Parts: sequence; C-alpha cells; structure tokens
Amino acid sequence: MSNENESNSLGRMCGWESGPDPSLHSHFLSQCLQLLIEKAVFGGTDRSTKVVDWVDPEDLKEKLDLALEDKGVTQADLLRRLNDVVKYSVKTGHPYFINQLFSSIDVYGLAGQWVTDALNPSVYTYEVAPVFTLMEIEVLKVMAKFVGYDQHDGLFSPGGSMSNMYGMLLARYYRFPQVKKRGVSGLGRLVAFSSIDAHYSIAKAAMTMGLGADNVVLVNVDDEGRMDVNHLKKCIAKSRQEGGIPFMVSATEGTTVLGAYDPIMAIADVCQAEGLWLHCDAAWGGGALISNKHKHKLTGIHRADSITWNPHKMLASPQQCSVFLTKHTGLLKDCNSASASYLFQKDKFYDTVYDTGDKHLQCGRRADVLKFWTMWKAKGTEGLEKHIDQLFDMAHLFTETIRKREGFRLLMEPQCTNVCFWYEPPSLRSERSNPKYNMLLNAVAPKIKERMVKSGSMMVTYQPLRSNPNFFRLVLQNSAVNKDDIKYFVDQIEELGKDL
Amino acid sequence: MSNENESNSLGRMCGWESGPDPSLHSHFLSQCLQLLIEKAVFGGTDRSTKVVDWVDPEDLKEKLDLALEDKGVTQADLLRRLNDVVKYSVKTGHPYFINQLFSSIDVYGLAGQWVTDALNPSVYTYEVAPVFTLMEIEVLKVMAKFVGYDQHDGLFSPGGSMSNMYGMLLARYYRFPQVKKRGVSGLGRLVAFSSIDAHYSIAKAAMTMGLGADNVVLVNVDDEGRMDVNHLKKCIAKSRQEGGIPFMVSATEGTTVLGAYDPIMAIADVCQAEGLWLHCDAAWGGGALISNKHKHKLTGIHRADSITWNPHKMLASPQQCSVFLTKHTGLLKDCNSASASYLFQKDKFYDTVYDTGDKHLQCGRRADVLKFWTMWKAKGTEGLEKHIDQLFDMAHLFTETIRKREGFRLLMEPQCTNVCFWYEPPSLRSERSNPKYNMLLNAVAPKIKERMVKSGSMMVTYQPLRSNPNFFRLVLQNSAVNKDDIKYFVDQIEELGKDL
Repeated sequence: MSNENESNSLGRMCGWESGPDPSLHSHFLSQCLQLLIEKAVFGGTDRSTKVVDWVDPEDLKEKLDLALEDKGVTQADLLRRLNDVVKYSVKTGHPYFINQLFSSIDVYGLAGQWVTDALNPSVYTYEVAPVFTLMEIEVLKVMAKFVGYDQHDGLFSPGGSMSNMYGMLLARYYRFPQVKKRGVSGLGRLVAFSSIDAHYSIAKAAMTMGLGADNVVLVNVDDEGRMDVNHLKKCIAKSRQEGGIPFMVSATEGTTVLGAYDPIMAIADVCQAEGLWLHCDAAWGGGALISNKHKHKLTGIHRADSITWNPHKMLASPQQCSVFLTKHTGLLKDCNSASASYLFQKDKFYDTVYDTGDKHLQCGRRADVLKFWTMWKAKGTEGLEKHIDQLFDMAHLFTETIRKREGFRLLMEPQCTNVCFWYEPPSLRSERSNPKYNMLLNAVAPKIKERMVKSGSMMVTYQPLRSNPNFFRLVLQNSAVNKDDIKYFVDQIEELGKDL
Repeated sequence: MSNENESNSLGRMCGWESGPDPSLHSHFLSQCLQLLIEKAVFGGTDRSTKVVDWVDPEDLKEKLDLALEDKGVTQADLLRRLNDVVKYSVKTGHPYFINQLFSSIDVYGLAGQWVTDALNPSVYTYEVAPVFTLMEIEVLKVMAKFVGYDQHDGLFSPGGSMSNMYGMLLARYYRFPQVKKRGVSGLGRLVAFSSIDAHYSIAKAAMTMGLGADNVVLVNVDDEGRMDVNHLKKCIAKSRQEGGIPFMVSATEGTTVLGAYDPIMAIADVCQAEGLWLHCDAAWGGGALISNKHKHKLTGIHRADSITWNPHKMLASPQQCSVFLTKHTGLLKDCNSASASYLFQKDKFYDTVYDTGDKHLQCGRRADVLKFWTMWKAKGTEGLEKHIDQLFDMAHLFTETIRKREGFRLLMEPQCTNVCFWYEPPSLRSERSNPKYNMLLNAVAPKIKERMVKSGSMMVTYQPLRSNPNFFRLVLQNSAVNKDDIKYFVDQIEELGKDL
C-alpha cells in the first residue's frame, strides 16, 4: 500500500463492528502506536520536554473534544483526539515527576502491560487465564521468599488500599470466623491499631468493614515518624479497659509522607503477647527487601501475619500492581469464598486448585502480574537490586545537597527514598522569630508548586503534617533520576521560590 | 540502522535502568508490538486459529520459562518469553470465545488502553490526571443520561463486585451515617435482599462489610429467573418479624447465568413503601440501555438509588471498566472520604472539586475510562446501538436455530444475549424416563467442554442451576459474531457430543 493510500485510509469512519480486521485497522493501529512511542514513551520522558502542559480545568474542557455524540468519527479524527490526550496528560514517567509514590516508564514493564491488554484476560480460573494463573503463583512465591515466609498464600489486588483491607479482613476472620455468615453484629466493638502516620486506607477499610473509623486507634510516632511501641501497649490496654476488642495492629513500612519504617520486631512482640494479628503495610517501603544493603529496614517482616507490598511503587512497575501476602495458607479462601457454581465448577477436567478466583473479593480481575514479571525477567533480581540501590543513593545525594544549601531545611533524616524538606526564601530568613513565621512558610510550597506546574518544569508534592507547615516531599522511585537531576531539582526550587 | 544491526541489537541484555532510551529500546518495542498485532490482535481473532492452545497446568509450567532468577535476559530472550505468553493464553477476543460475560478485542478500545498504559496515570487528583478526570466526568454524565437520572454522582471501580459493594455501602451510610465513625456494632442486624440468581458479589460484599452472608436474604425467582416481588415482600416482613433491619434491595438486570431482568418498577414500589435503598446490578444487562429497541427491559431504572453498569461486559470495552452511578449527589464522598491532607490539599491553585479521589475506596487508581471513551468517540452512540442490536439479533438467531435442531433444548426463553440450553446426545434421547437421566445429562456438558478446549475449537461455559443438570450458557457480547458463527457453534457442539 502506498503512503498516500495509507494516509487516505485514515479518513474512513471508525465503524461500529467489533473484531479486528487488518484491512481496516492495521494502519490505524500502527499510527496510534507510533504516536505513543514518539510522544508518550520517548517524548514524555525526555528531559527537554515539559512534565505537564498545564491548563485549568474549565479551559481544558474546551481544548479537549470530550463530548460523546450520536455519530462516530474518522480514524484520523480519533488519532487527533488521542494525540490531545497524550499532550495534556501529566508525563508521570518523566524523570522530573517526583510527585507521587509511583512514577517512571519502564519499557519492559510497559511491554508486559501492552501484552496483557492485547490478551484481555480475567484471572479467576485456569481455564480462562492459564498463563497468568501460573505466573501469579510464581511471582508470589518469589516475593514470599524475600519476605522470609516458610509458607504463604497471596494475591494481586487493585491497589494498596485493597491489599490493606484484605489484611484487616483476614485478621477479623481469623479471630471471629463467624463474621463470614453472621456479621459483626453482637460481637462487640472490634479495634485495630495503626500509627498516626499510617495510610488513610486503614481508616477507609474500617469504615467499609463496618468497624468504624473511630475504632482504628492511631498510635503516636517517635521523632523519626515510627510507631511508638510503648504508646501502642498503652493504647491496647486502654482500649480493653473501655470495652473494646483489640484484634490487629497495622505497622507501616515506609510511611506515605515521611518514609518511616515502624519497628517490626518490637511490634511483633506486642502482637504475640496480646494475641493480635500483625499486618505490615509495606506498600511503599517493601521494595527495600530486594536490596542486600537496605533490607535490614524490614527486619522481622517474616513475623507479620499479612503484608501489603506494591511493586508499582518502589519497584517501578506500571500501575497497578499491588501484592498481598499472608503466612496463613488457605485463609484467604476460607474468609472470602462464595463457591459460585457457574464459575468454579468442580467437575472440570483439570485440577481446580488452579482456579484461584474465589479467594478474591473481585470476580473479573485484570492480570496485574505480567508487567512486573516481565520487568523482573528482563533485569533479573540483580537488576531490581541495582534499581533500589540507585534510588537510595540518589535520596542520599539529595539529602546531602540540601543539607549544605542555604534556604533548604530537612524535616528529618530520611529513612526511605522520600525526602521531606522546606525551602525558605531569602525574605523569610530574617523572620524566624516572627510569630507568623510558620504561617508565612506554610504559603511558600503551594506557591512554588503552582509556578512549577504552570511552567511544567517539574512536579513535587507538598503537605502539612501535624504542627509542621507545608513542606515538600521529593519521592524517588525512578532510577533514571541521576546526579544532574538532583542538582536540577534543588536549583529549580530555589529559582522558583527565591523572590517569595 | 540496517536490519542486520537491528536484529543484533536484540542480543543485548535488557539492563537494569528505568527510563526509555531510543537507542536501547526502540527496536525492542517495535518488535514487541509487531508480535502483539500479528499474533494477539489479528492472529488471535482469526477464525482459522485456535481459541486456546490447551496445556495442562503441570505441563504448562514446564513449557513456560517462568522462573525469576538473579540474572536478567537478553531482549531477544524476553521477546521469546512474551511470545510464549501470547501463544498459551486463551484468545478472549476470538469470535469463538463465548465463555464469559466479557470477550472481543475492540481495536479502538485497545488503542485507548494502550494510550492509558503509556501515560500510566493514577486518577485521584486533577493535578496528576487532568485529562482522565474530565473524561470520567463526561462519560459518567452521558451514562447517567441513558439511565434517566436528573442528577447523579458516580465513579469507575475495578469491577462489578466492587461497584455492587459501593451500592451497599451507600445504602448503609444513607440510613445509618454513624457507621462511618462508629461502625455497625450496636446497630442491630442489617439485612439486604437479592434474588437467588443474583451475583455472588452481593454476598461477598456483605461478608466484607461485616453484615454476614446470612443477612443477604435470597428471594425466589419466577420461572423466567426474575425476582418474585411477592416473595420479596414476604421476605422483608419475615425479616422484620425476626428482628432484622432491612435496609436495601439489590435487583439484578441481566443475571449472570440466565440473563433475567428483575422487574424494576415493582421492586421500586416495594422499596418506596418499605423505605429501602434500591440498588440495580446492571453490570451485565445495562448495555441494553443504549438500544432504543431493547432499553425497555430496564424500564424504571431511573428510580434506582444506585446502579452498577460494566461497559466491559455487553458494550465490549476492554477489561476492566465498571461504572457505579447514584442519584444521591455528594453521598459517595460523605460515605467514603478520609480527607488525607498529603493528597487532597485545600490550598491548591485550582478548583479542588476536580480532585475526585476521596470518594473512592482506592487511593491510587487506574484510568479505566479512556478505553471506553475511545470506543464511544470512534463509533458514536449510533455505533454502540448497532453493536447491542447485533448481539440481540444473534442471540435470537441462535435461539431459533437450536429450537429447530434435534438434540438441543432451551432451558428458557432468553431475555438477554446469554442463551442457556442442553445438548442431548442421541444415546440419551431414549433414556428420558430413566431415573438416572438427569445424572447422565449432567455429565454431557463437561465432557463436550473438555473436548472443545483440548481441540481449541471454541469455548462456551456450562453450569448447573438449582435442580437443573449442567447446561451450556452461550454469551454474546462480541458483535463480530455473525450468522456463520452461530451455525458453527451449533454444529460444533453436536459434533463433539454426538457419540456420548
């Protein structure tokens, strides 16, 4: 086919029929993929391009042709719309996107994701998802080995919030198996414990599960943001005195903002003495388990009854890839099964132990495993370890850089690869004794953030925490970030904030 | 670059670094995409290819090189592994895959999914996902219009099971807002109602929410599989007498097995009289709303307080795309919010009404909207309607075909695009008065299924239902399925079963 004809062919209407047809769709697909590879994959991660082409919500509505109408469009029109989607989306794979606990485009992970999409599986029975079923078993096995479990069970869930809820569900069911049929009515007031810096999903899960957010007791943290184990003991005792029924503790390994690692050994001792389930939310910090240099941060995690560990965070797998592990084999199925006879027939011709879907809360479920398996296969464990070590090295470099730079101030020594700090503009440096100083400092980060987003130069988030005014949290999980980038981040924040 | 060099370049080790680099990854990506387009997209939907290349679990483990090892592999090795993933995966987009409530490869939907993956967004704040945030608002608005809602709120969730749980959570919170903080302890025994043919996710949600599976009362169905409204009334009265606290009814619009549409108007009347929340699980059957010819099946759905509607089912969007809608604006946020200050800062420089994440149970969340938006934009509403009408036409054709064919017997007249039927081999036709007839018939479908899977000729599921022995359920949601395919299905089942 000549180029001219190919180009003309995009003028055809998309048509309503399902079903790929090379004569109708080949050229469209190749054009679409070219757009993606040029503008999203390579263009969107090129340091010379913007992280975001910022447009206010009301204006963006005008720029994007979002309306869904009676008539369809031509393939060429559709490509233009998809081009706009790419243009105005935040480039979360860009090395200057250090805004969230996910980032990067890993080419091998992306390839795995694209393969998954082309196969469009749902992972509940071996019959429908043979490869993905076996692959999940393999990846869970290897991850459980890094945790140090002798035996394990596990699953992939749509995000860390869901994985944390699986942990709380198992904790409740393990202690009160009657909840499955009869519910919690009449059981009394069940109480969970977590730190004040734990992720909000623990509270959301308590709301969902009918426990109530007030029945998640938030334990104090020490100066480094780690759960205060003495306070935990006091909270448990107080809860019992008040008629509560403590049933679990959720320790956080890599808190969302500060990156603190709760002391697992000491918390496990408390749980053992008190008869409580120990869940470790290592969604963010779990990646360190892959590194011989940094795994000590999670010493004792094999004692946890259950664990959340998100490869889409520190290990930089594409979104979403969240793993839930437990040492209690069979409990997930006992807790969550409904034995639907239309899906989990027992008269199948193969071993239905491979029909793993009934331990999940979801029925249909995306295969989140392949993208991560592809990365691991590509790089080997050694490659993943180098990735993790690079992140910690760059976090260390950033820390040392701002320690020496006037106007920057660390909130605390980082334990993980998120680094929290303030930038103090020159105008504020003489105001430290001003009673309004904190209020003034509080306004700095939002203003710098606005400037960086509007210029598209980088993205880093900020937040207050307890009595601390707004501070920045730089997050490293993209191992493409190098020494020059670290210098760029510091210079850029200074440049954007020095006149404030 | 010459072809020879390109080919050699795949011999390089994948390397550990994140971050796409054209000189390292361009050729790998293009080879990977060529594999996908040839073997998964076009090859995997070609009628001359197998639906599945069946291998037993233990043997498949041997064939796939799943092990994750210390060392990485070359790009060429990785491509071989991905080729195996494609080869041994079930081709769920194949016209002969009529096994589940999802199927098809829609090229435009797939393109949208690939764009999503290349951008790797998480949809919780406008800041990080500007395009996807606005697009979700648009698609929810248009879907709410088809429902007939005057006002609406909604979200995308990872599957119908989760969407149904959102409905139950809102129902509970609407009646007992104190559950958010204090839980259900002390509230009494809350009771939900659904039919015996409702999806198991209602029971799973009740388990998760601490209500207990026993507190989902399963209402009888009529001969057509629709909820018996008189029995519903009796069940509600009985529950109250027994000290239960009825709070919601979940009607199913398109049941999983039979495709029955529960009578919404009559159920809504009961809910109104009894003061109960009405949730409609239209995950499967909701697609009919797009068709002027078939939307009458859901008459009254605007009266539902909340609705589950999965575009990845009848509308053939790629997995997963599940929409939850409610007429109660603001309630999702009131029910589920935790107001995390690190993510939902209120001192941002744009209107934070666009930061929609706090109404979700998930924190990080995939953008499931673009794939469906892309399909709708491509085809227009008229295209989606033609798709739906084609499915119903083919379901009708299949029904009429087997009605006339000896050995086939309909379980009941289909209401939706799933058709349930038995195939009775010649050897059984003289055994109808044999007391063991049902037992013999029960063994037929599994045996035919085994043969079709092992030959890869097609995939259709079977299941028992109440006293009915195993029967087939053909599911149509791929509008590429045509008249010839319908004939093929009938002939194939006969061919595989005639000697049994």
